Amino acid sequence: MPRYQRIAIIGVGLLGGSIGKAIRQRKLASEVVGIGRRQSSLDAALEIGAVDRATLNLKEGVAGSELIVVATPVDQIAPLALAAAKAAPESLLTDAGSTKASICESILSADPELASRFVGSHPLAGGHRSGPEHADGDLLLARTVVVTPFASTPPEIAAKISDFWRLLGAIVKQMTPAEHDQALAATSHLPHLAAFALSGATPEEFLPLAATGWSDTTRIAASDPALWRQIFATNREALLDALTRYEDNLGLLRQACEQQDWSTLEKHLQNAQRIRNALGD
Amino acid sequence: MPRYQRIAIIGVGLLGGSIGKAIRQRKLASEVVGIGRRQSSLDAALEIGAVDRATLNLKEGVAGSELIVVATPVDQIAPLALAAAKAAPESLLTDAGSTKASICESILSADPELASRFVGSHPLAGGHRSGPEHADGDLLLARTVVVTPFASTPPEIAAKISDFWRLLGAIVKQMTPAEHDQALAATSHLPHLAAFALSGATPEEFLPLAATGWSDTTRIAASDPALWRQIFATNREALLDALTRYEDNLGLLRQACEQQDWSTLEKHLQNAQRIRNALGD
Repeated sequence: MPRYQRIAIIGVGLLGGSIGKAIRQRKLASEVVGIGRRQSSLDAALEIGAVDRATLNLKEGVAGSELIVVATPVDQIAPLALAAAKAAPESLLTDAGSTKASICESILSADPELASRFVGSHPLAGGHRSGPEHADGDLLLARTVVVTPFASTPPEIAAKISDFWRLLGAIVKQMTPAEHDQALAATSHLPHLAAFALSGATPEEFLPLAATGWSDTTRIAASDPALWRQIFATNREALLDALTRYEDNLGLLRQACEQQDWSTLEKHLQNAQRIRNALGD
Repeated sequence: MPRYQRIAIIGVGLLGGSIGKAIRQRKLASEVVGIGRRQSSLDAALEIGAVDRATLNLKEGVAGSELIVVATPVDQIAPLALAAAKAAPESLLTDAGSTKASICESILSADPELASRFVGSHPLAGGHRSGPEHADGDLLLARTVVVTPFASTPPEIAAKISDFWRLLGAIVKQMTPAEHDQALAATSHLPHLAAFALSGATPEEFLPLAATGWSDTTRIAASDPALWRQIFATNREALLDALTRYEDNLGLLRQACEQQDWSTLEKHLQNAQRIRNALGD
């Protein structure tokens, strides 16, 4: 017997499509319903087997769900979660947004009772591609999903959402929305900003001389500008803090180069290499 | 009949070892001699089939060569090329250093006649690994090698060095040492500096939340600090110019975030994405 009767996914892009595929491959629900704004995305999601049924109608799509996952761009998550919660008053809800405090706080302030039904999530998976055609049922395998309950969330509700992600193969970490945003500003949002700036600062006539180093360092600058504008906007303060730390560090390297203080420069590089090597390839 | 009787490679790390392997796999020389400073590297180079013969003695190693490739860290290239040129007075010479003006100018100023025997080269290949154990005979396949003749270099000598790299599968571009250094400051040296700074600015307690974006953007911060200190030092001015362009671009993104001018931010991101997409994955 599948664990869930019906799961609804709002937004069937790369992430929503991958979650749908993962649920269906693992037979975790009797039915996965996909809800989108464009028929072409819904058709693609059906085509690749990410959902059993697809609709443009939110109310109809979420009706009778036990769990709703909102996997849209960040600025649509709060309003869609609130509308979905109204249309499916028994359902648990979570999301897949890259920032958490802004989303979770707008939901809680609009409807404080949702603390017992909505728990924010952020699957650390995706990359610079988008669209259901790149969906992958194993996208979350061994990936981290951060789950961010409110202080007022009943622990068993946070546990249920955490279990859902674990059943898709993910490793779950729980923390507050603010802790999430501070950490992700440093590990994801700033790297994107830095990659966009590095690409944007490259004189195009030099591109034929770009090799692996440039490609790796700027790869995520191929990400969707409209999505990243929203992510930067909804995590602005933590991003600016992380950017200040980065500018300070760049400034130390600049100073060492300007003063030709190469042993100090090498010490900074060694420290950076040590931090990089703490992670794998 | 092999094209060359004897080629000597000074420095048998990742790049020197790969060049040796490539020459031997393509039967381009009757004998490849490896010259190094440590017996362990020479043993490894012999073991993986990068050289036919290996020696710690520079004079003995280069004697009778038609071509000498200096593939050591950048600060040793000029003195070793000068010593090798003396010990093998008939040989052509090239190098594999990541910066060119400083190296080529020290060689030319020490011995102006070497303009007819030494032509600088920079194979855009390698990456963040080092050591002959990662050597790969196909490392240069379809990669760019920049060849930087002096104004006084006879064209047939530059052509000979260019042909050598082409025979190893590379695509050759000729330009002046200064043009090379300007371009590579933007496409390689600055990305390394930015990656080191980004890694160094990451609070270590946040590392468990690093995903693909952070890994890609900081991958080259795993590179050898001692080698990169030399590269930064020998291309200091062009690197500082590129860094200024980068800081200016980062400053524009910061300003848009601070002023919450999200449509301007998105325009900058779109421009960066367009430049990034001009290259492949």
